[in-house]
Amino acid sequence: MTEQVKIIHVVGQTSRKMQRNRKMIHHSVGFDPDHQLYNKTSRNFRVAAAELQNIDTAPAEIERVIRECFVKSAPVYIFVPIDMVNEHVLLSALDNPIDLTMPRTAAIEQSISAAIEAVASAIYASKNPAVLVDCLVQRHNSTAETKLLVDKLKIPVYSTNMGKGIVNETDPNYIGVYNGAISTPGLSIAIEASDLILVLGSLPCDTNTGGFSRKVRPENVIDITPTTVTIQGKTTFKDCCIKPFLAKLATSLISQKVPKVTKPILPPTAETDLETDAITQSWIWHRIASFLRPHDVVFGETGTAAFGLPDATFPEDITWITQTYYGSIGYATPAALGADLALAELHAEKGNPRGRTVVITGDGSIQLTIQELGTMIARNARPIIFVINNAGYTIERAIHGADHPYNDVAPYNWQAALRLFGMSEEQTKGCFHRVTTKQEFEEAVAKRSVTDPERVQMVEVVMDRLDCPWRLLSQIATRGEAVVKEMERAGFNVRRPVLKN
Amino acid sequence: MTEQVKIIHVVGQTSRKMQRNRKMIHHSVGFDPDHQLYNKTSRNFRVAAAELQNIDTAPAEIERVIRECFVKSAPVYIFVPIDMVNEHVLLSALDNPIDLTMPRTAAIEQSISAAIEAVASAIYASKNPAVLVDCLVQRHNSTAETKLLVDKLKIPVYSTNMGKGIVNETDPNYIGVYNGAISTPGLSIAIEASDLILVLGSLPCDTNTGGFSRKVRPENVIDITPTTVTIQGKTTFKDCCIKPFLAKLATSLISQKVPKVTKPILPPTAETDLETDAITQSWIWHRIASFLRPHDVVFGETGTAAFGLPDATFPEDITWITQTYYGSIGYATPAALGADLALAELHAEKGNPRGRTVVITGDGSIQLTIQELGTMIARNARPIIFVINNAGYTIERAIHGADHPYNDVAPYNWQAALRLFGMSEEQTKGCFHRVTTKQEFEEAVAKRSVTDPERVQMVEVVMDRLDCPWRLLSQIATRGEAVVKEMERAGFNVRRPVLKN
Repeated sequence: MTEQVKIIHVVGQTSRKMQRNRKMIHHSVGFDPDHQLYNKTSRNFRVAAAELQNIDTAPAEIERVIRECFVKSAPVYIFVPIDMVNEHVLLSALDNPIDLTMPRTAAIEQSISAAIEAVASAIYASKNPAVLVDCLVQRHNSTAETKLLVDKLKIPVYSTNMGKGIVNETDPNYIGVYNGAISTPGLSIAIEASDLILVLGSLPCDTNTGGFSRKVRPENVIDITPTTVTIQGKTTFKDCCIKPFLAKLATSLISQKVPKVTKPILPPTAETDLETDAITQSWIWHRIASFLRPHDVVFGETGTAAFGLPDATFPEDITWITQTYYGSIGYATPAALGADLALAELHAEKGNPRGRTVVITGDGSIQLTIQELGTMIARNARPIIFVINNAGYTIERAIHGADHPYNDVAPYNWQAALRLFGMSEEQTKGCFHRVTTKQEFEEAVAKRSVTDPERVQMVEVVMDRLDCPWRLLSQIATRGEAVVKEMERAGFNVRRPVLKN
Repeated sequence: MTEQVKIIHVVGQTSRKMQRNRKMIHHSVGFDPDHQLYNKTSRNFRVAAAELQNIDTAPAEIERVIRECFVKSAPVYIFVPIDMVNEHVLLSALDNPIDLTMPRTAAIEQSISAAIEAVASAIYASKNPAVLVDCLVQRHNSTAETKLLVDKLKIPVYSTNMGKGIVNETDPNYIGVYNGAISTPGLSIAIEASDLILVLGSLPCDTNTGGFSRKVRPENVIDITPTTVTIQGKTTFKDCCIKPFLAKLATSLISQKVPKVTKPILPPTAETDLETDAITQSWIWHRIASFLRPHDVVFGETGTAAFGLPDATFPEDITWITQTYYGSIGYATPAALGADLALAELHAEKGNPRGRTVVITGDGSIQLTIQELGTMIARNARPIIFVINNAGYTIERAIHGADHPYNDVAPYNWQAALRLFGMSEEQTKGCFHRVTTKQEFEEAVAKRSVTDPERVQMVEVVMDRLDCPWRLLSQIATRGEAVVKEMERAGFNVRRPVLKN
């Protein structure tokens, strides 16, 4: 719900008779149990639910919520009493595919047309427009339309922490990640100097805006959300579904009328930490980025990975999956299982490119969901999992109590993981790689078993327990000087963000 | 909430200012997030909550909900905004210990006295009374009072699946586990022939009553719940807290007036499966019971363990922990971590006997929470964990789809578990034991490292994938003949329960 992700959650229930009689069936709560309690509890975390109780309406109810899931891009629930599982329905219900297209009425078309006219006028009237692409574009299936639009505009393009990978980062118009005051040198000045920013699919939470430190005036923004378009803080057009809107905008714009913008020249970002053998946060994210290939699906787990990878420039056609707003550690591992099964299926059934699933997680996060390695091995999934082993919750050490035991995690012997979860001793040898220096890292990622995996690959990357991405420290520093002081006392090297004008 | 267990859940929140301003802070939901959403969502799963917003009332609020937790024996929540953590309160708040005793008013005393008189009269007037002890006695801290009562009564005593271990099972008056029609031969006939059954702390869910197959008439029951006493289906006395009620009842009863009851003689339960080397369900539960020692804390995970162990007679002073009403698989492993840390602490600080923590779980259940082994090893906990490796969800195979892949689990190499989760190679050798025959089982449980563990012990017990405790199959059979037929087709040997008179 937080991340606007499509989930169809099918929930088994007790029989309708047991529900009516409020029987004390296991998994219930209390002596007079309401069997609909879990249904009621999920209400704030979904956009629709099919509460099946009547076989005549069940097929239409199921279709209704599947459509809602796709149109609203959010979780829906289907509650199925156990006694309905064997009921029969008319086969003709399958005759018509479920309509998953956005609603298109005359009023909507009119709203879209009017919005396009307003957006086009604003662009044509601007001097140095820019585009800022955020994650809701991808969540609402509008990646292709966004690419069409930026190809047409040929003006500077920025992404956000969460919106990386949607546009081609090797395109000459791509500048980098805008994260408010916590951006690479010169970047925030460049985008904030723009007199018109087309913001696409914004998710403006603290962790995606440099702690709300963007300095962008509403009158310089065209805010294109999944359902609305707001022109420079004034007029809002409703019912503008982002997917058809962007498609139509891209085709409607007249290239010659779009201002030519001089690409901002940012100070070069020198390669850092070259003098040390140790694998450092400043070094690794660029290195992992150069390991990536088009069509890879990349997971940056909440933690140093989610804050480190925005420094890296991705190749074209990367799917970047993170969940920095919800921020539930442990998400990346099971999500990568799903992604890799999907990549295999789409390749086998539709001929899509068989990209790789690349996960960068931490020794703290993966502990929450490590058993998914078992499912991966059993199902022949083959993600490449980099586990940053920095002896605990480094992100939490930066936030508070760097040396407090609550920031430690149980020390695992990672080399035994693949063995426990199902691999033979022999297979494990080719699939587990422990690296403590840059040289060892290079040797590991040069192996064909890692670059083109046929089984799960795990690379344990040993790093210093207090080494942090600069973005993360700067993000935490937005909380105030007391927090910066505590970080510095603990030994962190904080780059203070400039928060005031 | 379902199991009436005391939990104090302390939940960190965003600052009060962020809450007021509905800021999009990570972990929130939506664009205008209600930061109290998780608080609201937990409402049906708690008996009290301290929603701290005001430092002046915070200490009293915290004390209030801690008291509620103990008095009602259920979960409570304390929500702490992050900006309140460093606020100061008066030290004098600690001068008086929190009152955790049950409420005692004149009205309550009168209700208890009247109830005791009614219960005593009914007992004195009965011919062959019996006691049925269930789990809520233990959840509401009334184990000692229950023992006093049954020692005074000297009449036949029965327990339930969930109520095992509360009374001394080696006492001559202890008969066995009453589980409706799914009881050992002769047992249900014996208790159902009683003209007065004192039912203590009943939790009458499907899995604790043989699928609601008890044949007990309300007019033959004195129902003593945590807060009420109902006499033979007629008069109900309210506000009778079970702990003081049982204590007073035990001292008030006049032994000479309690009828002498001839102990029911049940058919002897012959040792079974002695002819095979394989470790079978009929054999193992008795064997594990004889491994137990007084003061052990025993976990029967939901699955074959929860249905198998009721066949076993425990030594005195066993704490039996199961959660057969809520039935959430995976519970036993982390709960055992808590129990073992508590045993160590109570031993070190109060001189309580250092009982052992004994867990019997399954290869399916432990997969859900296996990472708790890491915490166990890191914290020097030393439970003895028997993992029934029967290649999947055997309980679910019995229920439906015996050979369907959804009842399989990822096959683990269990011998690598302790290594991954933190033990050295050398330590693992003395702590992991794989047994496939009775002989190997005997050898493992004869080792001093297992009987008196100094580290986590894991015993992988390999058993047949379709071998089930008879109780489990009979329980499932209460669902009807179609279910029995499916079980028989799959190869299960079902003992049909007699459900009708």
